[in-house]
Amino acid sequence: MTDLKGFTTPRTPSGRAGLVPPPPWHYVGDFLVVDFHADPDAATSLLPEGLEPFADDPGRCAAVFADWQSYSEGGDELLDPARSQYKEMYIVVNALLDGAPVTYCTFIWVDQDFAMARGWIQGFPKKLGQVWMTRTFNLDTPAAPAIASGSKFGATCHARGREVARARVTLEARSDSGSLHTDPPIVNVRHFPRLAAGHHDDPQVHELVRSRSRDRGVSEIWEGAAELELFDAPGEEHALLAPVSVGRGYRFTFGYTVDDLETVKELG
Amino acid sequence: MTDLKGFTTPRTPSGRAGLVPPPPWHYVGDFLVVDFHADPDAATSLLPEGLEPFADDPGRCAAVFADWQSYSEGGDELLDPARSQYKEMYIVVNALLDGAPVTYCTFIWVDQDFAMARGWIQGFPKKLGQVWMTRTFNLDTPAAPAIASGSKFGATCHARGREVARARVTLEARSDSGSLHTDPPIVNVRHFPRLAAGHHDDPQVHELVRSRSRDRGVSEIWEGAAELELFDAPGEEHALLAPVSVGRGYRFTFGYTVDDLETVKELG
Amino acid sequence: MTDLKGFTTPRTPSGRAGLVPPPPWHYVGDFLVVDFHADPDAATSLLPEGLEPFADDPGRCAAVFADWQSYSEGGDELLDPARSQYKEMYIVVNALLDGAPVTYCTFIWVDQDFAMARGWIQGFPKKLGQVWMTRTFNLDTPAAPAIASGSKFGATCHARGREVARARVTLEARSDSGSLHTDPPIVNVRHFPRLAAGHHDDPQVHELVRSRSRDRGVSEIWEGAAELELFDAPGEEHALLAPVSVGRGYRFTFGYTVDDLETVKELG
Amino acid sequence: MTDLKGFTTPRTPSGRAGLVPPPPWHYVGDFLVVDFHADPDAATSLLPEGLEPFADDPGRCAAVFADWQSYSEGGDELLDPARSQYKEMYIVVNALLDGAPVTYCTFIWVDQDFAMARGWIQGFPKKLGQVWMTRTFNLDTPAAPAIASGSKFGATCHARGREVARARVTLEARSDSGSLHTDPPIVNVRHFPRLAAGHHDDPQVHELVRSRSRDRGVSEIWEGAAELELFDAPGEEHALLAPVSVGRGYRFTFGYTVDDLETVKELG
Repeated sequence: MTDLKGFTTPRTPSGRAGLVPPPPWHYVGDFLVVDFHADPDAATSLLPEGLEPFADDPGRCAAVFADWQSYSEGGDELLDPARSQYKEMYIVVNALLDGAPVTYCTFIWVDQDFAMARGWIQGFPKKLGQVWMTRTFNLDTPAAPAIASGSKFGATCHARGREVARARVTLEARSDSGSLHTDPPIVNVRHFPRLAAGHHDDPQVHELVRSRSRDRGVSEIWEGAAELELFDAPGEEHALLAPVSVGRGYRFTFGYTVDDLETVKELG
Repeated sequence: MTDLKGFTTPRTPSGRAGLVPPPPWHYVGDFLVVDFHADPDAATSLLPEGLEPFADDPGRCAAVFADWQSYSEGGDELLDPARSQYKEMYIVVNALLDGAPVTYCTFIWVDQDFAMARGWIQGFPKKLGQVWMTRTFNLDTPAAPAIASGSKFGATCHARGREVARARVTLEARSDSGSLHTDPPIVNVRHFPRLAAGHHDDPQVHELVRSRSRDRGVSEIWEGAAELELFDAPGEEHALLAPVSVGRGYRFTFGYTVDDLETVKELG
Repeated sequence: MTDLKGFTTPRTPSGRAGLVPPPPWHYVGDFLVVDFHADPDAATSLLPEGLEPFADDPGRCAAVFADWQSYSEGGDELLDPARSQYKEMYIVVNALLDGAPVTYCTFIWVDQDFAMARGWIQGFPKKLGQVWMTRTFNLDTPAAPAIASGSKFGATCHARGREVARARVTLEARSDSGSLHTDPPIVNVRHFPRLAAGHHDDPQVHELVRSRSRDRGVSEIWEGAAELELFDAPGEEHALLAPVSVGRGYRFTFGYTVDDLETVKELG
Repeated sequence: MTDLKGFTTPRTPSGRAGLVPPPPWHYVGDFLVVDFHADPDAATSLLPEGLEPFADDPGRCAAVFADWQSYSEGGDELLDPARSQYKEMYIVVNALLDGAPVTYCTFIWVDQDFAMARGWIQGFPKKLGQVWMTRTFNLDTPAAPAIASGSKFGATCHARGREVARARVTLEARSDSGSLHTDPPIVNVRHFPRLAAGHHDDPQVHELVRSRSRDRGVSEIWEGAAELELFDAPGEEHALLAPVSVGRGYRFTFGYTVDDLETVKELG
C-alpha cells in the first residue's frame, strides 16, 4: 500500500529491517589461502556453461578461509558486530572466460545470514557453515603465532556438524606474488529458481556474472608450506576437488568495497 | 562445461550438493498460533503493492511458531535430521487480493539454511533466528503438558541474540474453527535484487505470489487464552505490529506438500 | 555479605540466577538406543577404579540418543523452553560393582549449559555437542515415520563441528525387554579437580556414585534392526568403543525425577 | 581398571579426551572494559562470605568483554582453533579481602564448553553466552576502526537468545592507568554442590579462592568515553548491577599464564 523500501526482504516503509542493507558494502578480513590442484576432470566437471577449462594448468584451485568484518555505508553494523562479523570458507577453480583467466567459486560456507544472502546476490553458492582460523594478536605471547617465519596457522570449516575442510600453513617469508590461484577475478552464477509447476528446471535468474570491486587494499602477504584436506559429508560434493597436490599457503589481511556487478551472459 | 544440475546452487553434475533439493517438499510440524490485532495503520504500512487492507477487521494479524520436519521427495533427509528439521516463527497480516482475503507474511525467522533458501524461493522474507516451543510427549509426566484443558505452552523467538517474540497459550478446549487470522491463503513477494550499479532499486525478481499446496492434513486443534509480546531489536521492525489486542491461541499438528507456486502479478 | 542462595553459581540473594536450579528435577524424553559390543579390552580400559569388567558378556555397550524436556520443581522453565529443552548422546559400558551389573557412562555430549552442569553434578562427563533425531508427529504424514513396523529413525551427534556418532533403527515390533545394555543402573565418577600448584593430579572430588531416581515411567517400547558408527575426532576418544557388532535398536519415551545420588566410594 | 588420566572428565588411559587439558594454560585476548558504578547496596548484596564492601568507593564495578585464544602447554589447540578460541563477558564488583582491594566476579558468560569448565575450576560462575566485539584489523580500511583517537568499538553479550549487556567505547588517547576497577586481583568462589538427599544446601566444595597468574603482558592501553547497558532476562540477575554512573572505557590486548590457585578460606 505504501512505498516499501529495502534492498532485500523484509521490506518496510523505512527499509531498516532488510536482511542485506543496500550497497556500497565495505569489507576487511584476515585470510588464509591454500593454492592446490584437484583432479582436472573433476574441476572441469563443475564449471558452468560459459567457462572453459584452464588449459595451461588444469585442476588449478584454491581454498580460502576468511574472517570478515563488513558494513553497509551509512549503517551502524560496526558498533553492533553481531550484524557485521562473519567467517567463510570457499573453493575456487581456475577457468577461462573468453580466453581470459578467471576463478569460479564452486562451494562456499558462511556463518551469518546477511552474508549468505549478500553472497547469493553476487552469485556465491553459499550455505551455512562454521569457520575457525588461528588468530594473531598484537602482543608477544605463547598463545598466538606472530606474523613471522615458523609461525603455524590452522583453519577448519564445518557444515551441519561435519568437518568439510582443514588447512595448515607454516609461514616462511614475505610473499612477492601472493596466491596465484586466486589472482584472476571471480565469476559466479547468479541463480534464482522458479517453484511454479513445470518450471523447476527453468530458473528465473541464471546468468554468469563477474565481480567488480574498488578501493582494494592488502597488507603484507606471508607465504609458506601448506596442508589441505577436504572431507566428504552428506549433501556435500566439494570432496570432488580433493587435492592431488598442495602448493603454497598465504596469510594476509584484505579489504575492499563492493557496489557493482557485471552480467557477462545469460545462461540457457 | 558439463550439464550441471541442482534446483539451487551449488550446482554439480549429480545435483546432490544443492542447498535446496528439488520439489515436491513434504512437511509436518507442531504449531502454536496466536491471533491478534496490531495497529491498523502499522499493518497497512507493511502491505506490498497489489494488496488492499483487510477493511472488515483492520489490523488483523497472527503470530505463528512452528517446529517442522521436512524432506524432498526421493531424498534421504528424514534419516539425517540435521538436514530435515527446523523451527520458525512468522507474523502474518490479513489483507485483500482482488477483494478476497489473504494473509501476507511480513516477518519470519528460521534456524536452518535450507529452510531459509526454500523460503526465499516462495517469497518468505526469512532471516535466521532461533525458536523454542514447549513440547508435549507421549507419556503422562510432570515434565510436559498434555494436550488437555489447562495445559500451558510457551514459545520464544530470538534473532542475532535478541528475543523478538514471546507467546503463551493455555489450552481450554478443542477448537471448531482453528485460527481465524491464518485461515486465508498466504501471499508473498518473491524478490531478488540486482547489484549492478544504477540498478540497486530495480530488483530482477519482484512479484506477488500466492502459495499452492496439496495433501494438507491437520490434527485435532486445541485453543485457549493467549499472551503475545513482540520486542524491538536492532535491524528489526516487526515491533511495528506490537499487539493492541490479543485473541485466542491454538495448538495443533499440520502437514502438507509443496511443489507449485502461482505468480499473481509482476510488481513495479 | 548477605546470605547468598543457589544450588550452583552464580549465587545471589534470591537464588534465581543459578545455572542449575535446585532439585527435584523432572524429566521426559524421546529415546533412540542401540545395543552394541565394543572391543572388550577397550571397554575395560575405560572403567574407573571400583568397577570390574562385565565378565559374562565382555564389551557390552549401548549408545543412547535422547531428546529431553526438563524443569526444576517450582521453576518456570516449561514455559521458557530455552531453559527446559536439550538433546544429548552418550555411550555406556556394562560393568560390575561389587558383583552386580551396572552401566558406566564413558562419553556424553549435550547441547545446553544447564544440562552440562547438572550432568557434572551427577558425574556425567559432559561436553557440548549437537544431537539430531528423527521425530514422529501426531499426524499421518509422509514427512515423519509412525511408531510402526518398517519405520526408520536416524540420529547423529556432533561436537566442535565434527560428527562423532551416527545411528539408524528400523522398527520391527513392540519390544518385551527393551534395551538390555542400558538396563543396569548407571554409575558415574563425580570429579572436580584442583588448580593449586602441585595438586593438579589430586582432585578435590573424585568418587564413584550410583544414580537414584523415582517416579520412572516409560511408553511402549519398539525395537528393530540397528546400525551404529562412532567417528574419531580431535580431542575425542569415544572411537575406542567403535562397534565390533551391533545389536538391536529401541525407540521409546521415558520420564523420571531426580533429587538424590548415592556415593558408593571415594576413589584414590 | 586401568589407570585413567585426565585433569577433567571424560578420563581415559591416554587422557586426551578430557574437556579441559591440564595446566599450564596460556592465554591472549583483546579486551574492551568499562568501569562503572552500580547501586552500592546491590553490589554489596552479591558479595560472598569472606569479602567486605569496598568502602572507599561503594558500588565500584567493571564490565569486561574479552576475545580469547588459549591453549594448554603441550597441546595442539592453536592449530585446531575450534578448541582454542572463545569469547566471554563478565562483571566484577570491587571488595575488600582482609582489608585489601580485590575484584569479585559476580556474573560471566562464555561461548565454549572447555572455557566454561575451566572457569568453574577457578571459581568463575560461568554460563554459556555469545559475545560480539568490534575488531580492529592490520589494514587502513573503512570497515574497521584503527587504534586511534575517535575510533568507536561496540560489544554485546547474549545468553539463551536474550541480550544481557551492551557497551560502546570511543577511544580518545593512550591510557596511563588502564582500568581502575579491574586492577585488584580477582577472587572467586569455587563451588561444587551435592545431590545426595538432605545435602542440597551443603556443597562439597565451597571456598574463597584468589587467582594466581604469571607471565602477564599487556599492549598499549587506549581509553575514552564509554556507554554500558545491562538488560534483564529470565533466569538472570546481573541487572541488579545496572549502572548508576559509567566511567571510562579501555581497549587493549592482554596475555598471561595460569597454573595455580590460592584457597583463601573454606566457606561455611
